[in-house]
Amino acid sequence: MKDKFKIAFIFFGLILGLNTVLAQNHPNLILTEKGVEAIKASLGKAPLFDKVLAETIAEVDAEMATAIEVPIPKDMSGGYTHERHKKNWFMMQKAGVLYQITDQEKYAVYIRDMLLEYAKMYPKLPIHPTDRSYSTGKIFWQCLNDANWLVYTSQAYDCIYNFLTENERKHLEKDLFRPYADFLSTGNPQFFNRIHNHSTWGNAAVGMIGLVMNDKELVERALYGLKVDVNKKNERDNDGGLIRPDGQKKAGFLAQLDDSFSPDGYFTEGPYYLRYAIFPFLQFAKSLANNRPELDILTYRDSILKKAVYALLYQTDKNGLFFPINDAQKGMSWNAREVIMAVDLAYQHYGEDPMLLSVAEKQGTVILDEAGFMVARDLAKGLAQPMRQKSIAYTDGPNGDEGGIGILRNSTAPGNELCLVMKYSAQGMGHGHFDKLSYSLYDETGEIMQDYGAARWVNIDQKGGGRYLKENNTWAKQSIAHNTLVINETSHYDGDIRIGEKHHPDLYYFHGSGPVQVVSAKSKNAYPDGELHRTMVLVKEDHFRHPILIDVFRATSAANSQYDLPVWFQGHLLRTNFAYDSELTTLNTLGDGHGYQHLWKEAVGKTENGNAYINWFSNGKFYSMMSAVDPEDELIFARLGANDPDFNLRHDPAFIIRKKDRRNAIFVSIIEPHGAYNPVAEIAEHPFTSIEKVSVLHDDAAYTVIQFNNKAGKVWTLFLANKDASKEATHTIEIKEKTYEWQGPFRLRSER
Amino acid sequence: MKDKFKIAFIFFGLILGLNTVLAQNHPNLILTEKGVEAIKASLGKAPLFDKVLAETIAEVDAEMATAIEVPIPKDMSGGYTHERHKKNWFMMQKAGVLYQITDQEKYAVYIRDMLLEYAKMYPKLPIHPTDRSYSTGKIFWQCLNDANWLVYTSQAYDCIYNFLTENERKHLEKDLFRPYADFLSTGNPQFFNRIHNHSTWGNAAVGMIGLVMNDKELVERALYGLKVDVNKKNERDNDGGLIRPDGQKKAGFLAQLDDSFSPDGYFTEGPYYLRYAIFPFLQFAKSLANNRPELDILTYRDSILKKAVYALLYQTDKNGLFFPINDAQKGMSWNAREVIMAVDLAYQHYGEDPMLLSVAEKQGTVILDEAGFMVARDLAKGLAQPMRQKSIAYTDGPNGDEGGIGILRNSTAPGNELCLVMKYSAQGMGHGHFDKLSYSLYDETGEIMQDYGAARWVNIDQKGGGRYLKENNTWAKQSIAHNTLVINETSHYDGDIRIGEKHHPDLYYFHGSGPVQVVSAKSKNAYPDGELHRTMVLVKEDHFRHPILIDVFRATSAANSQYDLPVWFQGHLLRTNFAYDSELTTLNTLGDGHGYQHLWKEAVGKTENGNAYINWFSNGKFYSMMSAVDPEDELIFARLGANDPDFNLRHDPAFIIRKKDRRNAIFVSIIEPHGAYNPVAEIAEHPFTSIEKVSVLHDDAAYTVIQFNNKAGKVWTLFLANKDASKEATHTIEIKEKTYEWQGPFRLRSER
Repeated sequence: MKDKFKIAFIFFGLILGLNTVLAQNHPNLILTEKGVEAIKASLGKAPLFDKVLAETIAEVDAEMATAIEVPIPKDMSGGYTHERHKKNWFMMQKAGVLYQITDQEKYAVYIRDMLLEYAKMYPKLPIHPTDRSYSTGKIFWQCLNDANWLVYTSQAYDCIYNFLTENERKHLEKDLFRPYADFLSTGNPQFFNRIHNHSTWGNAAVGMIGLVMNDKELVERALYGLKVDVNKKNERDNDGGLIRPDGQKKAGFLAQLDDSFSPDGYFTEGPYYLRYAIFPFLQFAKSLANNRPELDILTYRDSILKKAVYALLYQTDKNGLFFPINDAQKGMSWNAREVIMAVDLAYQHYGEDPMLLSVAEKQGTVILDEAGFMVARDLAKGLAQPMRQKSIAYTDGPNGDEGGIGILRNSTAPGNELCLVMKYSAQGMGHGHFDKLSYSLYDETGEIMQDYGAARWVNIDQKGGGRYLKENNTWAKQSIAHNTLVINETSHYDGDIRIGEKHHPDLYYFHGSGPVQVVSAKSKNAYPDGELHRTMVLVKEDHFRHPILIDVFRATSAANSQYDLPVWFQGHLLRTNFAYDSELTTLNTLGDGHGYQHLWKEAVGKTENGNAYINWFSNGKFYSMMSAVDPEDELIFARLGANDPDFNLRHDPAFIIRKKDRRNAIFVSIIEPHGAYNPVAEIAEHPFTSIEKVSVLHDDAAYTVIQFNNKAGKVWTLFLANKDASKEATHTIEIKEKTYEWQGPFRLRSER
Repeated sequence: MKDKFKIAFIFFGLILGLNTVLAQNHPNLILTEKGVEAIKASLGKAPLFDKVLAETIAEVDAEMATAIEVPIPKDMSGGYTHERHKKNWFMMQKAGVLYQITDQEKYAVYIRDMLLEYAKMYPKLPIHPTDRSYSTGKIFWQCLNDANWLVYTSQAYDCIYNFLTENERKHLEKDLFRPYADFLSTGNPQFFNRIHNHSTWGNAAVGMIGLVMNDKELVERALYGLKVDVNKKNERDNDGGLIRPDGQKKAGFLAQLDDSFSPDGYFTEGPYYLRYAIFPFLQFAKSLANNRPELDILTYRDSILKKAVYALLYQTDKNGLFFPINDAQKGMSWNAREVIMAVDLAYQHYGEDPMLLSVAEKQGTVILDEAGFMVARDLAKGLAQPMRQKSIAYTDGPNGDEGGIGILRNSTAPGNELCLVMKYSAQGMGHGHFDKLSYSLYDETGEIMQDYGAARWVNIDQKGGGRYLKENNTWAKQSIAHNTLVINETSHYDGDIRIGEKHHPDLYYFHGSGPVQVVSAKSKNAYPDGELHRTMVLVKEDHFRHPILIDVFRATSAANSQYDLPVWFQGHLLRTNFAYDSELTTLNTLGDGHGYQHLWKEAVGKTENGNAYINWFSNGKFYSMMSAVDPEDELIFARLGANDPDFNLRHDPAFIIRKKDRRNAIFVSIIEPHGAYNPVAEIAEHPFTSIEKVSVLHDDAAYTVIQFNNKAGKVWTLFLANKDASKEATHTIEIKEKTYEWQGPFRLRSER
């Protein structure tokens, strides 16, 4: 830089610094004057913050070196105009922060010029030409993305508020921000007034720009919703979710805080969506804390937002990947930008928990505000403590009485973990799946038994513009796509969200500590005349190299029925202990509907020996499942991929145990991770299960007793009380003239 | 440890130290007295060596804390007795080194006691009960593994030679080592006298124990082979390889050095097998260098072993994984113990190349001898230089006149790479595949277009005891399993090794430097009456984010034929530019034999527009292939997995361009890696190809001219001379009344 320019910049910097000091509460949305001063005073003392600042400067400077582009909206997500406008919002938000921290005017000019382009375009902009959403946006194909833009852009506007002339502000507010906020709210009540992550974004967007503009009407709208009733009763969104369920009495941000979470912070759509929603929740909450301290929003509902942040962090596997419950895309993790923000903000506002620092360390970045600065500073001080992902049961529903999910974790050595996620939650709105009492299983390498997640490629234009694919309904939501029982080839609640929304399973009991951990739940409504009861036991035992999982699934029906229990084991089948007939030259589908039409039937076997054993290999590890089966049970190997004309599905394998013509069925399996193989060393360690046999000693409405033994002859007996979950109750049962007694709903007893 | 024991140990240590000094040339096989002294004197000065030493002590001590087990042989590889005896050889070898370096007698005692157990068992041991090999072993199911045992164990014996009493040595040599060496040689001439990696192990085993025992007869046998002729003419091993090809005039270790490698160090079976064979090659060579310096073995045949080590390192992808040419198991890399040894030894004996240090750094370990010590020491000095994997053409055959493989590499940014491996080699003996002019393609994430490798799970008992599966012959060896042309659904050489062994393709020309790199080869014998000619061009160009690959495959037949060119693209298909009909409810096989019986036909399409475009996603990256096609060409999506009754195959996808009823065919495709997607950020960068169109401007026996353009309208024309590879020759061709001139066999010309 030439010297005279340098001087000019310093001079401008001084004026700007003065402006900032004189400003009336700008910035005060996410950044605050005080926070910015604190950061400036300590640059160089928090290396991670400095690194992020330098990277952001490099990124924004590179982008600013190209021309500003504000194209006429045209494309779906993944397409050019979509991605361009998305990039614009990120760049404006970052440039705003850089303007505040570095005092360099170029960032303010960049934002101003881009906003003026938007203000030029917006007044004449019709709704987006795609017109494919229940709430089509203007800049994007859905209002949701328009709201995203405003949540970020309101921060940029706040950052340069004092830089702009009054005329510029008036112009931007009149031609861009106010009509933009009106379009998202009064213009789209079916979008704005829901209890849904979409509306949270809408509420936050309208509220945040309202706070910057000091527009009380917009802020009230954001907090309490529109006074109008949303249009037709029972209208549904693109995903089949109800726009306004019967029970919904209120709307707006406070209503979202009341009704989106269970009392312990579980978000009914699942962690993938909570990850998405947490951003507007926390950003608007922080904005309100800065501007409307009287609301005391951060402690609202017993600090529900703090609970939500921790619920996010606990719903991850050992590597921080979210459990892909409901319509979730896999691969999303606590490294997402929303969680980075959530961790930093929780650290600042909720007690500086040192465990959060270790998550931030793994994230390897912080947000460029006072919260991120505190995290970076305390990381540099060495204050981090390891993140303990604990066994925990979450309730679902605003009152915590609509089922939930249970997470069990156990480890036999540092670095390994077996983690069970059992789902007995409510439907989870439009993105919910029909998989009551399903489970997924993880270890330190990732998925052992997968949840399919969504049939969707987010923001990948090639796959339906990034939207949910038709196979999301025909496959991913169906019960057979999950590790749960399917009766008569019909999904739970008949695969009908209107039925699903009315019901939920119930937790029977949860025991989440010690070497024997249990979660047990029942569903009376997944099938109209039957009951499902699943008990899953995670056992850490000296005789097994890794924890093992015992799965006991009991079902009853009003009439003779067919029961299918699939496991979506991840990996390559190595061995079975039973013979099977493979389809060699022709494959046919396993069924006609409810997801079965997507399954190829690859092989069917049977066994007389009482136990079906499958052994597979995945990610360098050996796994086994030993199941108690009857001679007439069909042992089916299936593979996903039929009726998939556009190659939208993953061609994954499944193993299905099928029991036919029964009023009652019990399925018992033990899953064991037991060995490893390294292709460089070519040595197989412990390739076989250590379990020899598992059997059902007793099963009736009151009690189930399971026995299994390892190859060394050690025997374990699992006693389960099916009707009384009391910890105090004692139980007695006689089996083969021997009397057993135990206390509480379960007992695992070992003998030699 | 109690103090008086400590004193006793120190006392023993002194005695042993004395013993070592007095010893007559022991150790002198791999370790030498001088080398051991040098290591001892410098402990603490080479941190990596110290780390490996500490780890080895911990490992061997833990093993020594359990009882010595020398079970009666019974199992196939992967089974208990196999893995136990394998562990024993590793433990003995390591304990021998520890005894030398630490002077602790317990290690010598451990080896002695284990050897005495073997000496007790061996005299009465029949051949292994499995009896499934052309050369069944005694301790293991094949002589090969018995030879492994002796290569390692002879080192352990050398290390404790002076520790043993003369009577103990006599007993071990009489009851164990001499009969063991005889069994591997005179007892199994069909194993010992081949030119094959099996025999290299056999030669080294017999030679190394001979050197320790100072048994000149065994050493001569190892060097020059048996004087006997191996049994029946045309006998073949389990893999179909000839025991003694017609041309073989000699046997033994020197013959292996002469005939196993091409003059530039390429090993005809491919790098996976070279990795395996390099161990006995180098270990016996080092033993000979220490004991028979007059042979000057390390410089034998213009330092062929040095060339072999570098050939290994150059036949790897960006991450050091070997190209899975022929019957190779994937996942094997330069981190294999054999390569660790090879790198250290090459560093010590072949000029201390600092590039080898960076490989050793990635390996993260060294061998516990003087070579490993030197590497660790020089790493600590910071002498390492980055490993440059370069573009290189290797010849095949002892005289370098039997085709070869061509490797092209180019990169547009640090960290990325596009690496083409084109195979025009000889058959590669019993483990060779019928894939003349095939290719595989890699980038920094791994496979883009895969070579299937072997249908085998090495040392995994569940899959046929770790042996080659029947699908190895019916699938992995067949041409359609590879990225090469198949005429009339018949594999090259009719899938018959006896034909394949007689022929090879020929390199036409290779140009391995600069932005436009080319490898071109022809095969006149893959099909009896036709000729195949493939030219592959790797282009690095400012207009493409990554290098692109141009594939031009020309074929002629004597009669009208069907031509199938498959690409085994790795990943999930996202988009095509043509319509196709998918099989929705029934799948059938694509053919009846030569591998086609293993393919499900999933979809078939056609296009009128002259170009077939496929776009896919793998490992976070987007890839595309644009092919010039005719309206009548069938565009087939197939998937592996039919006729696979034991789930032995991977269910991978393929795309096949099929041309029918022609005497000549030309296939032209451009493959481009172009974008990336991160599931955490959910942003797709450059998801589509930048290529708009590719077409064949001209094609006859003399010249082929290809033209393609990107979406920005830039046009490239590729001129190829099909009959004259001379760099000096000039060529003229008239196309559409325009005359083009160029010099040399290829020219890529760009215009706007």
